Amino acid sequence: MQSRQYLLASRPIGTPNSENWNFVKTDLPPLGANQIKVKVLYISLDPAMRGWMNEGKSYIPPVGIGEVMRAGGVGQVTESTDPKFKVGDNVYGTFGVCDYAVVSTQGIHKVDANLAPLERYLGVLGMPGMTAYFGLLDTGKPKAGETVVVSGAAGAVGTVVGQIAKIKGCRVVGIAGGEEKCKYLVDELGFDAAIDYKNSDVKQGLKEHCPKGVDVFFDNVGGDILDDVLTRINMKARIVICGAISQYNNTTPVKGPSNYLTLLVNRAKMEGIVVFDNIDNYGKSAAEMAGWIGEGKLIAKEHIVEGLETFPDTLLMLFRGENFGKLVIKVDHQK
Amino acid sequence: MQSRQYLLASRPIGTPNSENWNFVKTDLPPLGANQIKVKVLYISLDPAMRGWMNEGKSYIPPVGIGEVMRAGGVGQVTESTDPKFKVGDNVYGTFGVCDYAVVSTQGIHKVDANLAPLERYLGVLGMPGMTAYFGLLDTGKPKAGETVVVSGAAGAVGTVVGQIAKIKGCRVVGIAGGEEKCKYLVDELGFDAAIDYKNSDVKQGLKEHCPKGVDVFFDNVGGDILDDVLTRINMKARIVICGAISQYNNTTPVKGPSNYLTLLVNRAKMEGIVVFDNIDNYGKSAAEMAGWIGEGKLIAKEHIVEGLETFPDTLLMLFRGENFGKLVIKVDHQK
Repeated sequence: MQSRQYLLASRPIGTPNSENWNFVKTDLPPLGANQIKVKVLYISLDPAMRGWMNEGKSYIPPVGIGEVMRAGGVGQVTESTDPKFKVGDNVYGTFGVCDYAVVSTQGIHKVDANLAPLERYLGVLGMPGMTAYFGLLDTGKPKAGETVVVSGAAGAVGTVVGQIAKIKGCRVVGIAGGEEKCKYLVDELGFDAAIDYKNSDVKQGLKEHCPKGVDVFFDNVGGDILDDVLTRINMKARIVICGAISQYNNTTPVKGPSNYLTLLVNRAKMEGIVVFDNIDNYGKSAAEMAGWIGEGKLIAKEHIVEGLETFPDTLLMLFRGENFGKLVIKVDHQK
Repeated sequence: MQSRQYLLASRPIGTPNSENWNFVKTDLPPLGANQIKVKVLYISLDPAMRGWMNEGKSYIPPVGIGEVMRAGGVGQVTESTDPKFKVGDNVYGTFGVCDYAVVSTQGIHKVDANLAPLERYLGVLGMPGMTAYFGLLDTGKPKAGETVVVSGAAGAVGTVVGQIAKIKGCRVVGIAGGEEKCKYLVDELGFDAAIDYKNSDVKQGLKEHCPKGVDVFFDNVGGDILDDVLTRINMKARIVICGAISQYNNTTPVKGPSNYLTLLVNRAKMEGIVVFDNIDNYGKSAAEMAGWIGEGKLIAKEHIVEGLETFPDTLLMLFRGENFGKLVIKVDHQK
């Protein structure tokens, strides 16, 4: 049994390109104790992957040169030496960018295809959903009637942040790229307004759509948008730093927020979050989110691209702002 | 009775210069109801004054063109129409950059020359001391054994921050300009180490003197020093944004902290403070600080420059990092 895999061939300078990848076929090893072989069905593409390609320690170690690119995924067990996992079980885990993987069962958990389509466990019911839930509620602490702004609003995390903020009774303004996404946020997801950063002035949009200022800003993009929002924050505002996708491919230093002194004027704070810190509470939050989905208050949106070989290009959709909802690859399997 | 006064003549672009000031003699008005005439003895010079010279609202309105430059001060009552204030009382208030002032008694409070030299009410027993106390304890929340770094460490706020952090059992590292200041911080104020940003590499100094990383950073200066410290913060670190004196005279945009994404990696936060928010608790904190001074745990340091006419030059000492302790002007009075 061979696995098709994307290996990290070299560390990118700026935007990743084809030379950073090696697409190989490799024989999988026989299973050791407490291992499973997984047929990978969906692969999660996340902005954080860009950071894992860099040298140097971040919140988790980088992917080594020559290693399979790290990625979350869902798949089906095809062999098992762990009595807790049976052939046919659907599982979530870090299988990497590949079509078949042999992994230890530590950190693997089962998912139920009867409760939700499998790809959903990579989005609203997975890491992005948990990131949105804990980042918004525990760090952003929105109160009913407050104004919540979210950047990357049409992405995997942003769509969920905005909808939870609506559930909590806030005025919600999303910042996203393109008319189609902005229309979707307002018409389908119930955002109060959306600002199209690709075709309009963000500062002007904030002025218009946040007449009472900004109480919570959930930032996925950094750069100029962060600076623009900082000019509109209220006293005691909370800025949740979830990511800075506009800066991840920089070859120059990251653009720091020039307007950070508005934190001082407004006695506001800016706080970084990493979802892994809340791992003990995933169960409770997943149950609550599933409830909201059942009641129709939380709509899941996935952007599915077919074919493992598309990986290098599909990954770049994130940085071009081309994904619309949670970006996943649906893996094809050779006969 | 005439008052010598510095009026704001124009708004500075970059560093204030002599053209921004009008030094005038003006007849003082007769006292209205509940007013006092004050002979100003000491004038407080503070980094925040630079902000008050700019157009545009900040946490308080700007000084108007043609108005007396705003400044805190201590002085002696020479006339009064408010029964609560008698001739001879020593008072603290916002009298402006002048030798005599007529002011309403709202916001004026008495100070006791028997308890402390009058200039001390502009430093450790005044706004800078309160800023240090509440900013460090309420926002920085240092725990015994943690490492606290303070920039502008030899200034009015920094000297107090470092000493309170020592009282709370922390390892304290100051960043200041020049060998004399650094030696003073360690030898006289009991800091564990000091980094001379004018003559040594701050990053290297942080590496050496903060072997366990930085838990609390109290920032008065911004710019490169903020960025350097951000590379050394620990998980759940607290960055207190008190000021950014390195940026106040910029003619280009403020340098935002390029390394702000270490907040994300470390789940850390950056929070702005303004001392006025704690006004209701000044009494309690002043009593505690006075106790520490009495026990010899908290040493007050003032930098006194003589003569009202020195004001335009003396103010610039703040931005050149030339003051050593709380900078005040001792006002001369014409016969």
